[in-house]
Amino acid sequence: MADNPKEHEFEIILEAIGRSVGKMRSEITVSRPGSSETYEMATDEGDFHGGDGTAPPPLSYFATAFTACLMTQIRAFSKRLDIPINGVVVKGHYRWIGRQTGRDPYVGSPGGFSFDIDVDSDASTEDLVKLIEAAKKGCFIDQTMAVANDVGHRLKVGDDWLEV
Amino acid sequence: MADNPKEHEFEIILEAIGRSVGKMRSEITVSRPGSSETYEMATDEGDFHGGDGTAPPPLSYFATAFTACLMTQIRAFSKRLDIPINGVVVKGHYRWIGRQTGRDPYVGSPGGFSFDIDVDSDASTEDLVKLIEAAKKGCFIDQTMAVANDVGHRLKVGDDWLEV
Repeated sequence: MADNPKEHEFEIILEAIGRSVGKMRSEITVSRPGSSETYEMATDEGDFHGGDGTAPPPLSYFATAFTACLMTQIRAFSKRLDIPINGVVVKGHYRWIGRQTGRDPYVGSPGGFSFDIDVDSDASTEDLVKLIEAAKKGCFIDQTMAVANDVGHRLKVGDDWLEV
Repeated sequence: MADNPKEHEFEIILEAIGRSVGKMRSEITVSRPGSSETYEMATDEGDFHGGDGTAPPPLSYFATAFTACLMTQIRAFSKRLDIPINGVVVKGHYRWIGRQTGRDPYVGSPGGFSFDIDVDSDASTEDLVKLIEAAKKGCFIDQTMAVANDVGHRLKVGDDWLEV
């Protein structure tokens, strides 16, 4: 009987603690529980949205995260699949729609996301397609976007937490 | 006949151009087409994942984006709903799972996302719940995560683009 390749699961856990500062600025500390790694980041909004423009807006972090996630996976799997590449340029398109009635809070929805991927490589088109397919499957954000996620929200009320 | 409040739609479009630099570093320029606003951001991976650790990893940008998006909406809608708040602290929990067989490229999937929201306010619990509910609906990332998105990927092949 042939040995089956070993299967295993791993998990990635991040915690982000955000504090409101000024009008629209948020200061975020991202950490991996159990590790000393932390990243400090800040977001703000421009004048038009009532902010002071001291940092990039949240959606620009999202666009960076998603574009870079795919690029990282392309390079990581290029080694595993033995499909050498010299470099990659990815152009990501991000669109959202807001629906507003009078002065009510608006309702947001996704309006389409796509990537144009330009790989500098001598590999065959077939191999590059295989690499992109693997990168899509390995990119945690791509896979998260592909399914409907149940996101939990709890509000602190006194010493308790209320599901909202 | 009573006047109905005016309804309208607006869209938010972002473009992100990412270039591979070094082993795992990605340099991303995010812009809004038709505007001169641009944001330069960089991501990298640590030693363990074959990077040089010159910048935070892509998923930390995702955690920042999502946490801050919700925080921004809470403050923006606090004004519209006339529910005054002094500040807000949000703790976001992010989990992903990777499934790996031997040395094959792994397959990623979402493992759960949740937020603990602590609002500093004299408003009633009822009003704060109303505010969080509006913020969830207005947060573009929350709404994007709640549905299955069809993400497009095109590979450049010569002068053409091939859907992957």
